[in-house]
Amino acid sequence: MVTVDVTAPSGSSRSRQDHLAAEEPLEIRVRKRPLAVTMRTPGHDIDLAMGFLLSEGVIGEASDVTTAQLCAGTDTPNTYNVVDVVLDPSVPPPVTDPSRNFYTTSSCGVCGKASIDAVRTKSRFDVAADPLAIPATTLAALPAKLRAAQRTFDRTGGLHAAGLFTAAGELLVLREDVGRHNAVDKVLGWALREGRLPLTGHVLLVSGRASFELTQKAWMAGLPLLAAVSAPSTLAVELAEESGMTLVGFLREPKMNIYAGAHRVTV
Amino acid sequence: MVTVDVTAPSGSSRSRQDHLAAEEPLEIRVRKRPLAVTMRTPGHDIDLAMGFLLSEGVIGEASDVTTAQLCAGTDTPNTYNVVDVVLDPSVPPPVTDPSRNFYTTSSCGVCGKASIDAVRTKSRFDVAADPLAIPATTLAALPAKLRAAQRTFDRTGGLHAAGLFTAAGELLVLREDVGRHNAVDKVLGWALREGRLPLTGHVLLVSGRASFELTQKAWMAGLPLLAAVSAPSTLAVELAEESGMTLVGFLREPKMNIYAGAHRVTV
Repeated sequence: MVTVDVTAPSGSSRSRQDHLAAEEPLEIRVRKRPLAVTMRTPGHDIDLAMGFLLSEGVIGEASDVTTAQLCAGTDTPNTYNVVDVVLDPSVPPPVTDPSRNFYTTSSCGVCGKASIDAVRTKSRFDVAADPLAIPATTLAALPAKLRAAQRTFDRTGGLHAAGLFTAAGELLVLREDVGRHNAVDKVLGWALREGRLPLTGHVLLVSGRASFELTQKAWMAGLPLLAAVSAPSTLAVELAEESGMTLVGFLREPKMNIYAGAHRVTV
Repeated sequence: MVTVDVTAPSGSSRSRQDHLAAEEPLEIRVRKRPLAVTMRTPGHDIDLAMGFLLSEGVIGEASDVTTAQLCAGTDTPNTYNVVDVVLDPSVPPPVTDPSRNFYTTSSCGVCGKASIDAVRTKSRFDVAADPLAIPATTLAALPAKLRAAQRTFDRTGGLHAAGLFTAAGELLVLREDVGRHNAVDKVLGWALREGRLPLTGHVLLVSGRASFELTQKAWMAGLPLLAAVSAPSTLAVELAEESGMTLVGFLREPKMNIYAGAHRVTV
């Protein structure tokens, strides 16, 4: 790598070491049938697969999965870029009909109004009744806690982060990834494996924007509050309102915007 | 929306108007067969579909498409969230076999080393021989130009941007979207419709990270230089090196890091 500083004398340039965020494909298979591929930062891959399947409504608790194995792909024997999941016989396998567009959801959520309704019927958990009440001062302090825990971010500047917090502001788990949705899936997969679903009374904080997809994932895990350092989208706000979630955006101490479910934030 | 400032006297909160980035699903169909769904900011939807099909190697020039029509979905008659594309009879239709994982590529690129090779064989344009030479000072000035043109960003804080520049630093087209890949697809679709492919001697600037996927898209359009305001991923650097592209990251005046093809940046 070459670093250039156009203000330096005679336009000097120099080479130096740089740490880049690793990005590799991960293929998620159910009983050896390819279900989705996502470009992710390697690590916590089983959790990523669990979180993905939870987000898609395929599984809802750890016992829904018999085995999950990280294995080498057939084409690239030296890398471990495939997770093969075997579901409990009681769990209906995911629909992989292309017309259902299942494959797109790893990145961009699902399709339109009809699908928002579909997601609602799929969600196992009712977050609207969640009695979470969190002081605004506690919420405002979360991004600094997330940032402090982000060692990798400090090195590469290229990773998204997701952190799961208690209502008291305690960080339970932090995951980072080149993909926002992967970071969230890794957090949710961890919670599922730990038997913590639904995540009643918890808070999920993401380092970037709150998209429809991330809101949907939070809902599928039974989270009553999603907070984002940056802006939410219109569809994210709509989904939060419909599901009864609290959605906080631009969470930057000492301020925040509350786009839905403001009753849970105590001032 | 409620804005809370925890430092304000008695924790006062107030409501105010806020502009959010619109996010809606867009389904891309080829001859009425669903190919992909992406969550995007409405607008320039035909260009988005063109850029997506270009990135996937389905089309390479405007004449490969007979018609492209923005139409209402069957479920949601009042919204225009479907683009139906009819390809020229000479163009092989895209493969939609689930085992090919075509559907995932709208967000997260394709799968592993084998697929990097596959992309290379698909790319119609040789960027390695592109004679582009651009002064570092010209490059360094591009983010400010992009930012100045981003009126929407100033309002919502929630949009990614992609800008196509000439080697002289002239902004040809700017597109914004809730999805980085959509912003790039909209730029590339515009260029395709304008008959400007391959984009020899041009520069693509993105407001965020340089992922594998964005590098791949730039390559498919014949761009010799991709610049990003934030970090590239390892796989993006690898692809840039293999394809002979120039990849610039952390482009923040007056500095930048050049991760591949440094010979094109003159100091």
